[in-house]
Amino acid sequence: MTTPQFIDLDRTRSFAELASLPIPEVSRLLDPQRLSEKNIPAGAGLVYYYGAMPVDDQLAALLQQLADESGCIASYRSLVSGAVMNTGESRMVLHHLTRGTPGTEEESTDTAAKRAFYLEQTDRIREFSRKVHAGEVRGSTGKHFDTVVQIGIGGSDLGPRALCLALNGYAGVHGRGPVMRTAFISNVDPDDAAGVLSTLDLERTLFILVTKSGTTQETLTNYELVMRRMRTSGIAGIDPAAHLCVVTSETSPLAQSREVLQAFFIDDYIGGRFSSCSAVGGLVISLAFGHETFLELLAGSHEADQLAFNEDITHNAALMDALIGVYLRTIAGYPAAAVLPYSQALSRFPAHLQQLDMESNGKRVNRFGEPISYPTGPIIFGEPGTNGQHSFYQLLHQGTDIIPLQFIAFRQSQMEYDCSISGSTSQEKLLANLAAQIVAFAVGRSHSDHNRQFPGNRPSSLILGEQLTPRSLGALLAHYENKVMFQGFLWNINSFDQEGVQLGKVLTEALLSKTSTDALLSCCYDLMKQEGQKNPPREKEV
Amino acid sequence: MTTPQFIDLDRTRSFAELASLPIPEVSRLLDPQRLSEKNIPAGAGLVYYYGAMPVDDQLAALLQQLADESGCIASYRSLVSGAVMNTGESRMVLHHLTRGTPGTEEESTDTAAKRAFYLEQTDRIREFSRKVHAGEVRGSTGKHFDTVVQIGIGGSDLGPRALCLALNGYAGVHGRGPVMRTAFISNVDPDDAAGVLSTLDLERTLFILVTKSGTTQETLTNYELVMRRMRTSGIAGIDPAAHLCVVTSETSPLAQSREVLQAFFIDDYIGGRFSSCSAVGGLVISLAFGHETFLELLAGSHEADQLAFNEDITHNAALMDALIGVYLRTIAGYPAAAVLPYSQALSRFPAHLQQLDMESNGKRVNRFGEPISYPTGPIIFGEPGTNGQHSFYQLLHQGTDIIPLQFIAFRQSQMEYDCSISGSTSQEKLLANLAAQIVAFAVGRSHSDHNRQFPGNRPSSLILGEQLTPRSLGALLAHYENKVMFQGFLWNINSFDQEGVQLGKVLTEALLSKTSTDALLSCCYDLMKQEGQKNPPREKEV
Repeated sequence: MTTPQFIDLDRTRSFAELASLPIPEVSRLLDPQRLSEKNIPAGAGLVYYYGAMPVDDQLAALLQQLADESGCIASYRSLVSGAVMNTGESRMVLHHLTRGTPGTEEESTDTAAKRAFYLEQTDRIREFSRKVHAGEVRGSTGKHFDTVVQIGIGGSDLGPRALCLALNGYAGVHGRGPVMRTAFISNVDPDDAAGVLSTLDLERTLFILVTKSGTTQETLTNYELVMRRMRTSGIAGIDPAAHLCVVTSETSPLAQSREVLQAFFIDDYIGGRFSSCSAVGGLVISLAFGHETFLELLAGSHEADQLAFNEDITHNAALMDALIGVYLRTIAGYPAAAVLPYSQALSRFPAHLQQLDMESNGKRVNRFGEPISYPTGPIIFGEPGTNGQHSFYQLLHQGTDIIPLQFIAFRQSQMEYDCSISGSTSQEKLLANLAAQIVAFAVGRSHSDHNRQFPGNRPSSLILGEQLTPRSLGALLAHYENKVMFQGFLWNINSFDQEGVQLGKVLTEALLSKTSTDALLSCCYDLMKQEGQKNPPREKEV
Repeated sequence: MTTPQFIDLDRTRSFAELASLPIPEVSRLLDPQRLSEKNIPAGAGLVYYYGAMPVDDQLAALLQQLADESGCIASYRSLVSGAVMNTGESRMVLHHLTRGTPGTEEESTDTAAKRAFYLEQTDRIREFSRKVHAGEVRGSTGKHFDTVVQIGIGGSDLGPRALCLALNGYAGVHGRGPVMRTAFISNVDPDDAAGVLSTLDLERTLFILVTKSGTTQETLTNYELVMRRMRTSGIAGIDPAAHLCVVTSETSPLAQSREVLQAFFIDDYIGGRFSSCSAVGGLVISLAFGHETFLELLAGSHEADQLAFNEDITHNAALMDALIGVYLRTIAGYPAAAVLPYSQALSRFPAHLQQLDMESNGKRVNRFGEPISYPTGPIIFGEPGTNGQHSFYQLLHQGTDIIPLQFIAFRQSQMEYDCSISGSTSQEKLLANLAAQIVAFAVGRSHSDHNRQFPGNRPSSLILGEQLTPRSLGALLAHYENKVMFQGFLWNINSFDQEGVQLGKVLTEALLSKTSTDALLSCCYDLMKQEGQKNPPREKEV
């Protein structure tokens, strides 16, 4: 078994060997046999296909060597065993424990206690959501809660929002629709809260305030805005505190608040963008879809986590995906990667992945704080197919840069509501479009008219599942969390801090508390406010 | 006055001179005076600020020289006068005429006829939306229409959808909310239609089918799916045709259909991604928000169009924005650009710009079909601020690549629903965050801990308005359309065709009609369907 190495990518032997080889041409490599054979199970029925990636046998062997040399699996074992892997903030990284006890070895005493803590929160969520659904916990005017609104930003918003969107259709088929309607307030732009509030029946709405530190400016502002709206609603007997749960750390100022119906806890060992399986995602999902749905999601995630321990990269989808991504980014030099779900239910999943990936691996120092000189995390973007085909695919096919693609698809539609038109169902059309794109990107087309020529050689991979269920959704979520983690190990960076968000926060606070003596900063702020000062906005009590 | 030149960028004198200069350092360049002085009106109260872009006086002079040498303004005049600027498809490019008669010169007889055609459609929209709002046109069972659902994809979806989202809040303050609720069906994934249909009262819903050619696979499939749903709804007396408008070309098979309440027309001189101001956007906007709102949007667009004729780049926001973008992409070599609206109402505007920009300028041949050897259109992505700050800004600040940024903001919130918390309103917090980001990106911060160091020198520009109204939204839309057009002139490419989407279409059709003999394609499709064949999906009549 390997051990953690913590070695810069460009100081590995494998890197030099990989860099010395030409990039294999996908158009020459790809054939039917390869397409169907190059696949790895990714949990809950998901399969990762990488036949259309520029990885021949020689390269695959070197990628295996790189994984071994970097000690990827050993680092993963170390991480789940409670090593201080978030070096910048001197913290453990334990989000895997929210969904099971990862690995096959005995867990340490310390991580067992953490696992017990996460389980306790999950149990409290089960009990609370049961009471809300049964009407044992009701709004302060006696009405059943039928809507849950999460107030949070970043990791407290993007993951849970994407998951709730992904589950709405499933709930409509496998239950009688969501148990409670969901909405989200995130942006400090007051139009965000105003837009959501205009759709709510406050007597039937339960708010969840999510901030680990208890100090997030946007979230606390929106919380105050919502509470004031309640207090000034004119609804007889309404008690804002009886409509509010919080998800926060036990040490946060909010944890002891009495102005709260119930508090649920997270700890410092789960970063925001990795928190979807903690109470941050668990409470809203359990309230919206029932606690069983959340447990299914956790089971799918745990299944993917277990698969990610395999040292053989041809049996470890997350690790293979990570290695190919690092190769394309750092050695081939491609600056971006697109995530393209052929599933409308996953319409906001790319926005979650954008945070997960770019905030984790958009770094320029190694885990010891030393500058590194190779490209790290790529730009991540994407929209659902087939919509993207009628939007930015023109550039993907015929633009001047190569952008590697990752497709996500399911054999069956989620809502199973379909019909045959012109000889094929909509689902068949969807999958035919995807098959056509994979081949078109890889193979291209020569043509005497250069404008109709497709260069091909555009690499793509595919994560294919049977249907988008809570379980396969959980596996998908964990696949990407583990992929991003492995890439951090390969680049030797700390994927678990985010110092890059601090400077903006500091400057914003200096402006708002008027302590800034920076002329540039003041000028910039004045520029934006000047007309507003001439015509002050009508300030409304809310 | 210059004349159109149609010369490859790397064959201009200016290009060589620009390429010989070092990229100016934003951190050294930027000071309060520059920040406030470097601005250009962009129409309807919008102002484009470019002080935080790496453009010193020497560079600005060369950019002016490049604009002149490329004949940008002359090409624009030529375009609006009816020249065949879409060389690939041998078509004129006349979307500017939907909102006015651009330029100051006499219009040609031919474009006058086109302008009259677009005006006629706008008049028909006014009259039709008036009748619907007045209840003179009702659903087939006698009920008032209260919801409008647009069925379209790509340009028939992204622009109109982004605009409707952007106007919802405005309508809530300046009217009594939207006149009709809007929804959109675009994806061929059957879950898209199923999700929207589950929210509709069919008796009160008016559908708009939008496809210029009348042959778009996704749109016709969703149309059939919706019509079947109507026919099998069991609602006594419902007549699907009485709930359907179409927007199509006069030569399309749909134009003469009798199964339609009313048809509105566009022509071949307006590309999908430039069609928001035609009937494609005009009908749904007029129905949803009233025809006056659409006319305001047109007025704002026309104002921006007029400003874009200025030969002096320091007085032409769209041209300056285009030139700086070309410089950053082709000479500085930055592969992407982010669009970051500090306005929740613009949450889907980046998705529209992604199509507008990437589909127009993601090209590898010049307007004559000859290969070019320099980078063209960048990757465009973005999410609203402050949300993005808690997501991908980490990479923007501390990642290994520089990504130029364009912020969009308004001094006042749209819904004017705000309150002061901890000494500042939400709107003030929003703008303080933006000011802080602009300075942080440009100036950075040195720190003994490399992990807390910010390299700075990240260029950004800002489009700042007073408030997001139909008029300023129109100017914003036209600013980007004109910017993309100018960039196409500078790169000497045809921004108005999209041959890159064809290959996928052809292969999809071959698969669905089972005419494909390509083993790779068949294998890829079989891969996706195989389990589905073992367990065929429950096909439901809809």
